[in-house]
Amino acid sequence: MTRLIAHLAPALALLFASPIRAADGIPPSVSPTSQARAIALRERAVADNAAWSLVESLTTEVGARLAGTEADARAVAWARARFEALGYDRVWLEPVKFPIWRRGHERAEVLPPFAQPLAITTLGGSVGTDRKGLEAEVVAFADLAALEAVPDASLDGRIAYIGYRMTRFRDGRGYGPAVAARSRGASVASAKGASALLIRSIGTDSHRFPHTGMMSYADGVRPIPAAALANPDADQIERLLARGVPVRLRLDLDVGLDGEYTSHNVIGEITGRSQPDEVVVIGGHLDSWDLGTGAIDDGAGVAITMAAGALIGHLPAAERPARSVRVIAWANEEQGLIGARAYAAAHADTLSKHIIGAESDFGAGRIYALRAGVDEASWPLIEQIGHVLAPLGIETQRSGGGPGPDIVPLAERGVAWAQLAQDGTDYFDYHHTADDTLDKIEPAALDQQVAAYAAFAYLMADAEGRPQARPRPAPTR
Amino acid sequence: MTRLIAHLAPALALLFASPIRAADGIPPSVSPTSQARAIALRERAVADNAAWSLVESLTTEVGARLAGTEADARAVAWARARFEALGYDRVWLEPVKFPIWRRGHERAEVLPPFAQPLAITTLGGSVGTDRKGLEAEVVAFADLAALEAVPDASLDGRIAYIGYRMTRFRDGRGYGPAVAARSRGASVASAKGASALLIRSIGTDSHRFPHTGMMSYADGVRPIPAAALANPDADQIERLLARGVPVRLRLDLDVGLDGEYTSHNVIGEITGRSQPDEVVVIGGHLDSWDLGTGAIDDGAGVAITMAAGALIGHLPAAERPARSVRVIAWANEEQGLIGARAYAAAHADTLSKHIIGAESDFGAGRIYALRAGVDEASWPLIEQIGHVLAPLGIETQRSGGGPGPDIVPLAERGVAWAQLAQDGTDYFDYHHTADDTLDKIEPAALDQQVAAYAAFAYLMADAEGRPQARPRPAPTR
Repeated sequence: MTRLIAHLAPALALLFASPIRAADGIPPSVSPTSQARAIALRERAVADNAAWSLVESLTTEVGARLAGTEADARAVAWARARFEALGYDRVWLEPVKFPIWRRGHERAEVLPPFAQPLAITTLGGSVGTDRKGLEAEVVAFADLAALEAVPDASLDGRIAYIGYRMTRFRDGRGYGPAVAARSRGASVASAKGASALLIRSIGTDSHRFPHTGMMSYADGVRPIPAAALANPDADQIERLLARGVPVRLRLDLDVGLDGEYTSHNVIGEITGRSQPDEVVVIGGHLDSWDLGTGAIDDGAGVAITMAAGALIGHLPAAERPARSVRVIAWANEEQGLIGARAYAAAHADTLSKHIIGAESDFGAGRIYALRAGVDEASWPLIEQIGHVLAPLGIETQRSGGGPGPDIVPLAERGVAWAQLAQDGTDYFDYHHTADDTLDKIEPAALDQQVAAYAAFAYLMADAEGRPQARPRPAPTR
Repeated sequence: MTRLIAHLAPALALLFASPIRAADGIPPSVSPTSQARAIALRERAVADNAAWSLVESLTTEVGARLAGTEADARAVAWARARFEALGYDRVWLEPVKFPIWRRGHERAEVLPPFAQPLAITTLGGSVGTDRKGLEAEVVAFADLAALEAVPDASLDGRIAYIGYRMTRFRDGRGYGPAVAARSRGASVASAKGASALLIRSIGTDSHRFPHTGMMSYADGVRPIPAAALANPDADQIERLLARGVPVRLRLDLDVGLDGEYTSHNVIGEITGRSQPDEVVVIGGHLDSWDLGTGAIDDGAGVAITMAAGALIGHLPAAERPARSVRVIAWANEEQGLIGARAYAAAHADTLSKHIIGAESDFGAGRIYALRAGVDEASWPLIEQIGHVLAPLGIETQRSGGGPGPDIVPLAERGVAWAQLAQDGTDYFDYHHTADDTLDKIEPAALDQQVAAYAAFAYLMADAEGRPQARPRPAPTR
C-alpha cells in the first residue's frame, strides 16, 4: 500500500492542486477539503443576518422599482454600492435596453344598479382604455379554454372575464395552468371581439389585492386592455352574474408604452483561486413590480445571493474556490427576462465557461430541495453537494424542477442549471401585489438560504471537474 | 300541599297568562314553555342559512354604503324590502340627518431620496389638503401621550406621526387604548403646530390596507388633515426615520364636508302577543365605510338580527312572545352613532317601554359570552337565558362588556343592555379596510349567532317581569 501511494503521489498532488482538471471519464466531485470549507461557510451563514440587512435596505430605501422608472436607476446604484461595500473583487454594470411600460391611474367600477368600485390592476404590457374610459357588459368564462371555444367575433364589444382559480402548492405548480389566462387571454379575447379582458388574479390569497404580471399580444391582434381583479372582487363579479342579469362595468386604465430605457444588470464577482475565467452564476432580479416594495419578489433573492457571494469573498485567499462566483442582480426580469437575455447574448462567446447557474426567485421561504439540470455523469457531484445541504433540511431530488427565470436563456444555450427550491406555499398570496413587503419575510429563513447558496456556490466553484448540462431533446421543428 | 296549591291557583293562573305582570319583588324569569320555544328556535336557526343569504345580498348588490352616498339610499331600500320579504309585521323608516363627508382621491408618497408611494387613507371627518398637496417632514411619536408631551407650537408645520401598535385580543380591548390617536390625534397635533397627522392604522394585521375610521376636531383647533398608514407603510416610515435623516412626505387628500343628507333607520318589528308596546331591541348598523363592502362591519350584524327576528316572526301566533321584537338597521353608525342618537331622541317618550337593547356590531365571529347591563334583581333572568345559550358555546359572564355602539344612547337614558359578545380575535385585521368583504365570513358562525339572538330576543320578549338597567353612578359634574 505504501508503495502504491508513493507511486500515485505526483498524480494526487496534481489532482488536488488543480481540482478542476479531473481526468476524462472521471465524474466531477468535491474534495474533502472543499467539503469542509463549505460546511464552515454554511455554519457561518446561519449565524449571520447579512441577507436581512440587504433586503431591508433595498425595500426601505428604494421600495418599488419597476423597470424603466427613476427607482430602477436607484436600485442599480444601490446594488453596485452594496457589492462594493461587501468587498466583491469586481463589480460592473452591463446595459439592458427595453421599452418603458408606465402605469398611471387605474379604476374599475360596477355600473348601476349594483354601483360599486372594484379592486383592479392593469397587466404589464397592456394598452390602456381611451381617455374617457370603457363601459361594457361582462361575460364570464371558467378558463382560457372556454374563452377559446367560443366563435371568433362573438363577444361583440363585451368584456371577457376569465375566472380560473389558482391552486396552492408548495412548489408553485398551480401557477402554470393559471398564468396562461394572464399571458395570452387578451389575444384570445380580442379575436373573439371583446373590448377588454379581465381575469381573476393569479394568486392564492383572498385579500383585496389584485395581482399584476406580464401579458403580451400575439402578432396581428387588435390590442385590448387587460387587467386583473382581486380575488374577492372576482367573487363579487361572479355572484352578480349568478343573478342572471346583465352586469356592466366601467374601466378607466391609464397605462401604456412610453419610450425606451437603459437599465443594467449589476454584477459582483468573487475571483476564483486558480481558474477565474470559469464562473458559477447565482443571483436574483433587481427589478420589481410597482405595487409592492418587491420584498419577496425579488429583493430576497438578490439579498440571499449577494450575501452568499460575500461570505465566499471573505474567505482567506488560499481558501477561495478554484473558479469565480458571479452574483448577478438581473435587470427587468418581470417584463420578459430582458436582463437575462441581454446577458446571454453579450456573453455568448464564453457560455462554455459558465459552469452552472442558479437563481433565487421564488420568495423568501426556506429551501427544501436541490434539483439540477445536469447529465447522468454529474449526478454524483450533485449528490455530494446535497449531502452538505442536507442538515439545512434540503433534500436532493433527482427529477423535476427547472432553472430560475433568469437562468432560462443560459440553459437554452446549454448551460447546466441548479434549483435550490424554496417553499412557495404562501408565495402566491403576495406575488405581484401591493402586499409584497418586508414584513412577509422571516429573517431566519433568509439565513438558511444564504447558507445553502454559499455552500452550493462554493462547492460548484471548487469541484474537481465540472457538471455538464443534461442533453436537451432535439428541437421539434 | 294540595290545599296550598288550590289557594295559589288563581295567582298562578294570572302569572302564566300575563307573564310580564310578575308581582313586585319577584325577580323576572322565563317560563318553562317560553324556554322550550326558545330552544326550538335555537335549533331551527343553526340549521338555517338565512343570515348568510342576507349578508351575501347586501354586500354583493349594494357593496360599500358610506353614509350620505347614493349607496346609502340603496341600502335603505334593500333593508326595507328585506324586512317586508321576511314577513315582519311592521316595517318603517325614521329619518336621520347628518353632514355629508366625501372621499375623493387620496395619495401619499415619500419624497426623494427615498421616493415611493404609501398606502394611506384619510380618516372620516378630516379636512383635505390644499389642491396642490402638502409637503413636509415627518416627526414620529410612540403614542398620543408622547405627542401631548411636546410644547405647543413646537412642530412648526411638520407632519406628526403616531406609531402606537394595537394589540390583538379576543374581546377587542386593544382598540380603546389605540383609538385615541385616531379620534383626538389631529386636535393635539394641530395645537403643537403640525400641518397634518398621520397614524399607524388601528388594526392588528400586517397587510397593505390602511384602516379608516372617525376623527373629530376639538372646539377651536385649526383643522389639519388626518390619515392612517397601512401597517407595513408605518413600518416603512419608522425604518426610514431610524436612518437618522429627514424624511419628507407629500400628501394629496381630496376629502371633506359637502352638504347635508337624510338617511333612515330602517325598522322591522315582530308584534308581541300580549304587550306589543313593550319592545326588545336588536339590530346592526346598515351603513359601512367606503373602502370595503361592509361585510363584517356590519352587514353581518344586520343579517344576524334580521334573520333572528324573522325566525320569531314565523312562529304560530299563539307562540309569539308577549312583547314585540324590534330589529333596527341603524343609519350612519360610523360617523358618530347618528342614527342611534336620532332614535333615542325620537323615542324619548317611550324609552321606558324599551325592555333591553343589544346590537351585533363586532364582526362575524362566534358569540362566546353573554353579558348584561342589568340590576342585581335581573341576574336570575340573565342566567336563565344564558342556560339556553350555553349549548351554543356561550358562557354567561357577570362582569365586563358594554352595550353595542348604537345601544349606547339608549343605555345612557336608562335602558338595560345585553351584549352577545363575539370572538373578535381577527376583527381588527379587516375593520374599516378595503378587505372587509364577504369571504371573511364563515356561514356556520353566522348561524350560531342567529340562534343566540333568536333565543335571547324571544326569552326577553316573553319574560315574566322585565330586567331593569344597572343603576348608573351619579354624573361626576
